[in-house]
Amino acid sequence: MYSRAITPSGQRKGNLLIGQSGGATAVINASLVGAVIEAERQQQINDIYGALHGIEGVLKRQIVDLRRESAEIWDDLLLTPSAALGSCRYKLQPDDLPRALETLRSLDVRYFLYIGGNDSADTAHHLALAAQEASYDLSVICIPKTIDNDLPLTDHCPGYGSAARFIALATMDSAMNTMSIPHHFPVKIIEVMGRDAGWLAAASALGKERPEDAPHLIYFPERRFNRERFLNEICEVYDAVGYVVVVVAETIRDEQGQPLGASGAQGADAFAHPLLSGTAQQLVELVNTKLGLRARFDKPGDLQRMASFAVSITDRDEAYFAGQMAVRYAVRGASDKMVTLVRRPGKEYSCATSQADLSAIANSQRLLPDAFINEAGTGVTPAFYDYALPLIGEPLPRHVRLKKVRV
Amino acid sequence: MYSRAITPSGQRKGNLLIGQSGGATAVINASLVGAVIEAERQQQINDIYGALHGIEGVLKRQIVDLRRESAEIWDDLLLTPSAALGSCRYKLQPDDLPRALETLRSLDVRYFLYIGGNDSADTAHHLALAAQEASYDLSVICIPKTIDNDLPLTDHCPGYGSAARFIALATMDSAMNTMSIPHHFPVKIIEVMGRDAGWLAAASALGKERPEDAPHLIYFPERRFNRERFLNEICEVYDAVGYVVVVVAETIRDEQGQPLGASGAQGADAFAHPLLSGTAQQLVELVNTKLGLRARFDKPGDLQRMASFAVSITDRDEAYFAGQMAVRYAVRGASDKMVTLVRRPGKEYSCATSQADLSAIANSQRLLPDAFINEAGTGVTPAFYDYALPLIGEPLPRHVRLKKVRV
Repeated sequence: MYSRAITPSGQRKGNLLIGQSGGATAVINASLVGAVIEAERQQQINDIYGALHGIEGVLKRQIVDLRRESAEIWDDLLLTPSAALGSCRYKLQPDDLPRALETLRSLDVRYFLYIGGNDSADTAHHLALAAQEASYDLSVICIPKTIDNDLPLTDHCPGYGSAARFIALATMDSAMNTMSIPHHFPVKIIEVMGRDAGWLAAASALGKERPEDAPHLIYFPERRFNRERFLNEICEVYDAVGYVVVVVAETIRDEQGQPLGASGAQGADAFAHPLLSGTAQQLVELVNTKLGLRARFDKPGDLQRMASFAVSITDRDEAYFAGQMAVRYAVRGASDKMVTLVRRPGKEYSCATSQADLSAIANSQRLLPDAFINEAGTGVTPAFYDYALPLIGEPLPRHVRLKKVRV
Repeated sequence: MYSRAITPSGQRKGNLLIGQSGGATAVINASLVGAVIEAERQQQINDIYGALHGIEGVLKRQIVDLRRESAEIWDDLLLTPSAALGSCRYKLQPDDLPRALETLRSLDVRYFLYIGGNDSADTAHHLALAAQEASYDLSVICIPKTIDNDLPLTDHCPGYGSAARFIALATMDSAMNTMSIPHHFPVKIIEVMGRDAGWLAAASALGKERPEDAPHLIYFPERRFNRERFLNEICEVYDAVGYVVVVVAETIRDEQGQPLGASGAQGADAFAHPLLSGTAQQLVELVNTKLGLRARFDKPGDLQRMASFAVSITDRDEAYFAGQMAVRYAVRGASDKMVTLVRRPGKEYSCATSQADLSAIANSQRLLPDAFINEAGTGVTPAFYDYALPLIGEPLPRHVRLKKVRV
């Protein structure tokens, strides 16, 4: 762990720089707003800067003065999805570090806040190490952000609650369509995000109350996919319910470890994660050709990370809170840390914050634990509801059904 | 036009039967609730029945007693998307008509309400004619319903306003993601519904305020698609804005009249409308291979017709109103008619209802008029905003941007 070498914390004034990184979310701006508002209150902080497109903006010295924004913008920005400063998916190269430090030094940046996920933690960690080596006094704090909810050492990640709420609502609503006219397209596949972790796929079950409710089958990245078993499972549900609503993560792998959507592969991103498309399309074709059942798919795509009209208020509040606490930790002298959310014990849900070492977050993934996946591997357990329901904010709507008393 | 032969209107008591047909919407139940609540008030109406899965329920005598539902259900059903009675896409065969009449006669149904689109109007029209031929006194009234907004003789269709609101919000929000990290996937394709008409595609522009806002290009079924022109248009926007958000209707046709998604064809439905998939996927591949730009697509699918969390209150109110007025028209003796919405002149938006002959609605489609498509054929005109903005209910949220004053 990096401790500040030269200056005792909380005494010297300096400037703060904040950046946003990775896939944006519907509440990532709430963390920005929380940090800015808190920074304005802190006497140790002089100027408040923003880096355009995260670390890329630091390298290119594309830095903006956030004190020159109008005072009213922050309330509106709280409700605006996506990364207002612009985001990036840039993997820091060793050669980049001196240049990044040069920008920080030239602007007297002493507090660097980075809102992002595991890759962003990696970037921030290396920056913290480089500053330490250069004896440049810098507090580096990450603010967790990812709809994937796959960061270790935090109860959950800001951004997940809103995406989870969207997916729960989308599954409930879209399934209502299939239910109303089951013989038209008896099989529906809903493809959701989640690079390697099934947290979002699991969230599709949050509106499910009875076994016959959708989703009937969930396919998680944590479980290997078998085509025969899949087709059998579809038939079983079809026979029992009359239609089948399937939720599938975009990157499920077969028993040979091959991603199902590989035929739609579009290369890899800067972190060498393969970019896939077409998992739902492949399942649709499998059901059509092997079972002769008409199937189609919904793919909400970026909407699931962005939908401002399905935000979890709890998630937005926590995103703000994490931003606020990052500033407090920074001015107290912490560095090379990520803010974590710690669920308080007790019946009523609430969270405090704590800190975790960036080295323990960087490039690490927390998958959906076995305790949250049911025995069949195609659904969630009651423990998952206990975990996730508080995160999605106000209760989901209850869709009613008629009794349908026959004449 | 069929006029009642035997009994003067408004005098004899009889039973009412209501059914839902075609693709469900987020507010189709509001029409059901409006009709039921109004029917309960009408002394000429004895029992209130529902047909399960529309005309199929009539043929199979799957009829339920709606007076036996709990009184509280109707308030909740108003907020529940999809067709609570079940829907159908069944084309009435000539042999079916005597059987349908037999069900109606055996239940003393004298008022038949059918909530649906053009195909449903066709069904209802034939039923009205058959009743007339059989000298069976029956009022047949259709309640318009379609997200496609393609029924003639009505200002607009209940169901459209909510789907339009969803698509406007989805385009605004999803585009925010592309804007935050344009170089990651600079081209985004959003595929929306609309069998032959571009009303839903057009709705994607309702949140657009400036030329550089998304959507940058809309491809309508009303315009023939040319691959070369498309690629040029993508390049132009990419050069000017740095990223491109495209909205495409699911069934656009090339200059030979071939649907773009034809390779994903899945047969035809009962009305011989081809079922297509894959338009967005094809555009993505075109952009990837011909331009070397990374593209991906969102396909909200059934969510755009079902999203209970993006309902237009105006739309829901009008769906209720149309159901209510259908009952009033029926008990006043009208038949073989569809309820229409008539926009009142004046600055403040409001609608009255009127009636149109089912024969003029059946199997007829109102396409997006030229006056609503801009000269380039890839956007909408100010007249479209005047038409559509009042239909989507409360104002869309305003997503703010930082001024970004450089340091």
